[in-house]
Amino acid sequence: MSQKNVIVAQSGGPTAAINASLAGVIDAVTKSEVYDTVYGSLNGILGILDDHILNLSRQAADIPDFIHTLKFSPAMYLGSCRYKLADYEDDDSTFAFIFHQFKKYNIKAFFYIGGNDSMDTVSKLSRYGEQIGSDIRIIGIPKTIDNDLLATDHTPGYGSAAKYVASSILEIAHDTYIYSVKSVTIVEIMGRDAGWLTAASALARNSYSGAPHLIYFPELPFDKEQFIEDVKAQLKLHNNVIVAVSEGIRDKDGNYFSAAKPTSDQFGHAQLSGTGKCLEYFIKEAIPVKVRSIELNVLQRCAAHISSLTDIEEAFALGGEAVNSALRGDTKCMMILNRVSNAPYKVEIQTADITGIANAAKAIPRQWLSQSGNDITPELYDYLAPLIVGEPDITYKNGLPAYLPVDHLNPLISAPIYRKDC
Amino acid sequence: MSQKNVIVAQSGGPTAAINASLAGVIDAVTKSEVYDTVYGSLNGILGILDDHILNLSRQAADIPDFIHTLKFSPAMYLGSCRYKLADYEDDDSTFAFIFHQFKKYNIKAFFYIGGNDSMDTVSKLSRYGEQIGSDIRIIGIPKTIDNDLLATDHTPGYGSAAKYVASSILEIAHDTYIYSVKSVTIVEIMGRDAGWLTAASALARNSYSGAPHLIYFPELPFDKEQFIEDVKAQLKLHNNVIVAVSEGIRDKDGNYFSAAKPTSDQFGHAQLSGTGKCLEYFIKEAIPVKVRSIELNVLQRCAAHISSLTDIEEAFALGGEAVNSALRGDTKCMMILNRVSNAPYKVEIQTADITGIANAAKAIPRQWLSQSGNDITPELYDYLAPLIVGEPDITYKNGLPAYLPVDHLNPLISAPIYRKDC
Repeated sequence: MSQKNVIVAQSGGPTAAINASLAGVIDAVTKSEVYDTVYGSLNGILGILDDHILNLSRQAADIPDFIHTLKFSPAMYLGSCRYKLADYEDDDSTFAFIFHQFKKYNIKAFFYIGGNDSMDTVSKLSRYGEQIGSDIRIIGIPKTIDNDLLATDHTPGYGSAAKYVASSILEIAHDTYIYSVKSVTIVEIMGRDAGWLTAASALARNSYSGAPHLIYFPELPFDKEQFIEDVKAQLKLHNNVIVAVSEGIRDKDGNYFSAAKPTSDQFGHAQLSGTGKCLEYFIKEAIPVKVRSIELNVLQRCAAHISSLTDIEEAFALGGEAVNSALRGDTKCMMILNRVSNAPYKVEIQTADITGIANAAKAIPRQWLSQSGNDITPELYDYLAPLIVGEPDITYKNGLPAYLPVDHLNPLISAPIYRKDC
Repeated sequence: MSQKNVIVAQSGGPTAAINASLAGVIDAVTKSEVYDTVYGSLNGILGILDDHILNLSRQAADIPDFIHTLKFSPAMYLGSCRYKLADYEDDDSTFAFIFHQFKKYNIKAFFYIGGNDSMDTVSKLSRYGEQIGSDIRIIGIPKTIDNDLLATDHTPGYGSAAKYVASSILEIAHDTYIYSVKSVTIVEIMGRDAGWLTAASALARNSYSGAPHLIYFPELPFDKEQFIEDVKAQLKLHNNVIVAVSEGIRDKDGNYFSAAKPTSDQFGHAQLSGTGKCLEYFIKEAIPVKVRSIELNVLQRCAAHISSLTDIEEAFALGGEAVNSALRGDTKCMMILNRVSNAPYKVEIQTADITGIANAAKAIPRQWLSQSGNDITPELYDYLAPLIVGEPDITYKNGLPAYLPVDHLNPLISAPIYRKDC
């Protein structure tokens, strides 16, 4: 009897939880009585095209604590890609090669862990498979710190990034409160098109600290004059005002504040200012007060040591359920989280048809933002609060988190054997 | 019999460990059979001048887990100041008022937790005290993430910041390794005059990751052309090159790279580029490769959730020993750590005469930097490694670190009753 194997890949930007979904897939395959080997495709779909394939079943058997360590390791054990498949209606040669590779490895199911673009790949591959009469299951497993995927209540990776943002705002608040001189601190948070991660900054508030005192979202037009007024009003109430701002805020005409025209510094280099830096200068120009801007940068998506256990466990469960769904015959779908209740917090795992999920994004509903547009509502707070609960069981060695080695990623020595860039 | 009280204050920039020293002082006074009450002066020496005084003994008695929570809380429970006492030879009225306040509160010992400037205050106050024949003990307790104080092997606060830097570099490395396209990531680290914190980035290296691949220190002149060559050489060896750079690097003429002349962005604002941003543009100009710069910013000094337990415990012990030293009659001194051995790591707590410590800084010795000037030596690695070991016992509530409330700091309502700015 021929082998029944599965293959899994990761794509898009890193999160602290995407390896937990990978661990969930490996764990479920290992426990499955149907599937034999789980392969990992390196650098997303490119690994299948380039024949860069890891035998994850063997790694799970050989490397001590593999599943546990992988579950709590940041970024992407299999590497990523930013590769979008062309429409097979135009040219199906890439698709034909992928299914050729599936056959070579006796693949019965393909799991793609990623965001919007990855779900586009899931959608195209499953439609192509349908067309050629393939019985290979093609299932998407969501992840993105942006929380902007349709169909699912929230996305794995979001809760951990949200926890990082909230704890950073809290620690920055402690840092700023020590001086009695008035100050404004701008914290720039990721999320170009949706303000979910910026909204999570509100979770930092507690009995003694109201930071962030103002929050600005990409969902609403940003008005510079109103912003100055907002800050002035807060400075009457607080010595140290902390502002959370999405990198994606735009003016009423849709222009990003981060997309500064290249200007020149003293070395003659093009200079792009970030959103936070831009707001810093708005304040400096208008209010005589100490101002600082902080860009949380990539740590908000890779600081696994302060990930949310709720997030990690959900990501792990989604990976495992994806395997079970494939065994039940599901395909052309994405695994989703359906929230049953906020308190007690309860979610169910289901599947949703992939059609319509890919290439669309979910913004924060207007009614979840305050009337003034510079804060969230209690409803959004209640939605957010359960997602950051719980601390990961990170092992430290010599004072540093002991993550799973990724030396198979850097550098990838072997040359591509097949690549059709689109 | 009159009361025998002590007063403690904090000054300078925040660290994750400065509250541990405060907790150590409070704990030792509480256990002492000589001292009655420990007072806290808000915003450094200014609290004594302005009569902003907290009764810390009462707080320790009233607030559950006060000592433990304080020990692991970031920034400064008593607030800070940047206030330098004038020379009392010129005008001793401020000094006279401070000793008047000491008398009012029956103060027998004053502990000042801080860096260079705070040790200047300790030095001046103890010399003035000596002159007027006071028996009040004046003792400095060191802290600074910069690790640049003389006399002590290292400074409390440094180990925690070093741990944050090293784990951030490790997590950033995981983040960058996922893409197969070549990239350079510049990480800007605090430390204007000494490269100790930048050097700690080397602790991120492990069996699978050589990041940071290059390190640049303020101790050595930075040469742009050499930097480009260094990066090019590393890009031949690694897909993703990570560079750690001190904010304080200077060219051979002593010009900071961060001190850009004000230029204008599209909004017409003055624009200062950071060191990391500056190096980012050096690369962009010279090498066709993806480049990103990351500024670790204030989180490296306030992210208490990933502080070093070694650091916290040493800071706590220094606070306690300062009280014991005062009881033994020591004054006009700073508490110091004397390293007995690296492996096993062992330090002793001693005192050092304050004279000559204040207003001087300790750079990394040249022989602890590599010949090429872009790395550390094994000797420096061995010095650094023990300082980041151990994880703090942080309590989390609703997914966030539960730190000690600091609402007494923000805003300070009462008006100054005495202030002579110098």
